[in-house]
Amino acid sequence: MKSIRKQVETAPSAQFGGRRIALQTIERLSTYRRVLEDLQGQGAQYVYSHQLAEYVSVTPAQLRRDLSLFGSFGNISRGYNVQHLITVLSGLLGTSEIQPVALVGVGNLGRTLLAYGGFIERGFSLEVVFDSDPAKIGRVIAGRRCFDIAEAEAVLAGHPVDIAILACQPQGLQSIVDRFVAAGVQSFLSFVPAIIRVPPGVHVEMEDLSAKLEKLSFLVKNRVEEE
Amino acid sequence: MKSIRKQVETAPSAQFGGRRIALQTIERLSTYRRVLEDLQGQGAQYVYSHQLAEYVSVTPAQLRRDLSLFGSFGNISRGYNVQHLITVLSGLLGTSEIQPVALVGVGNLGRTLLAYGGFIERGFSLEVVFDSDPAKIGRVIAGRRCFDIAEAEAVLAGHPVDIAILACQPQGLQSIVDRFVAAGVQSFLSFVPAIIRVPPGVHVEMEDLSAKLEKLSFLVKNRVEEE
Repeated sequence: MKSIRKQVETAPSAQFGGRRIALQTIERLSTYRRVLEDLQGQGAQYVYSHQLAEYVSVTPAQLRRDLSLFGSFGNISRGYNVQHLITVLSGLLGTSEIQPVALVGVGNLGRTLLAYGGFIERGFSLEVVFDSDPAKIGRVIAGRRCFDIAEAEAVLAGHPVDIAILACQPQGLQSIVDRFVAAGVQSFLSFVPAIIRVPPGVHVEMEDLSAKLEKLSFLVKNRVEEE
Repeated sequence: MKSIRKQVETAPSAQFGGRRIALQTIERLSTYRRVLEDLQGQGAQYVYSHQLAEYVSVTPAQLRRDLSLFGSFGNISRGYNVQHLITVLSGLLGTSEIQPVALVGVGNLGRTLLAYGGFIERGFSLEVVFDSDPAKIGRVIAGRRCFDIAEAEAVLAGHPVDIAILACQPQGLQSIVDRFVAAGVQSFLSFVPAIIRVPPGVHVEMEDLSAKLEKLSFLVKNRVEEE
């Protein structure tokens, strides 16, 4: 650990159509789509790659390289067709149809996620809701019946989902994840500040609402300039 | 746009102590700290770099390279001292003292952010709260008095902040940002799906709660394996 040798870096990546794609590329696709939808809302039909790149804070080369992985887009004189690119990105991200998502935990954060309109706009419906609190189980909260987490296997057998959002307490979380994986859940978005372990092929994304504040704090405190 | 030429990539970066640091490095520092705090909660005093790297899904070389930017840590036989590394990272991220943050918009999302315990644990206090709704202005919401966004300049003069969180409607957002920048706000965390423009030296982070679901959806739909 004394000398930091130069090593070949391997970023987390995925295989797609025989190619290796950095997971960060996939995150950027979401960002591209969101900005394109904003542009479309402002009436734009076409956008140049250098403009789109600027809006999403990447280099034009990065943008073109990302999109080139999925096909040939754009027109040298007019730029990208906004609607076409939105359609392609929606297809790639698998959200051209509404898909059901499970939610674990209907506390303050969970209720907000249930009420958050942005998920359904982007193709995700938080349909299968769990909690362990007897005061919540069986009640209808924000339009969804709250199931007992103790009955997760039976509920998920009747309401299969690929994705679960974790918004519960950290205590017992690993055991819930293990049971969900056994019930066929393939990926987790966790708002819980705790390490969870999953078998190969199951994906975990951590969402940390404080991390971006910390990054801004670092930039402000150190008076650094983004370049 | 027909041929994708190889170009030198320049990732968004910042200057720190005469060095160039990728902004993604700063985000990883937050993640390292969070995982270290979780390990500390589990009673760990030391952690090896390969273990810490595995927990945060980076390569050991990446972890060591990130930390080497800020000093020399770790001990070849026992690994990193968990408490020491937490202290160093907290100092770097500028959150060893509580800092005030402004919040714009006290709708459903804004109220949750106010009630979210994670911010104060990480050193951020959402102290200066704004809305434009006459039914909210002047009221005390989650312990904070809600100010009129129309009086932002006067309020911020009396309660200066470096960071503002945007959780309002997209209409009129750019004008609010312009006024906050003029009042000395140096960075924004935006939950609003809209492009905002700021002068050089002012930082914007976009938080998109749907983007990670889209990434999981992509991974599941395309049956890809993380590597």
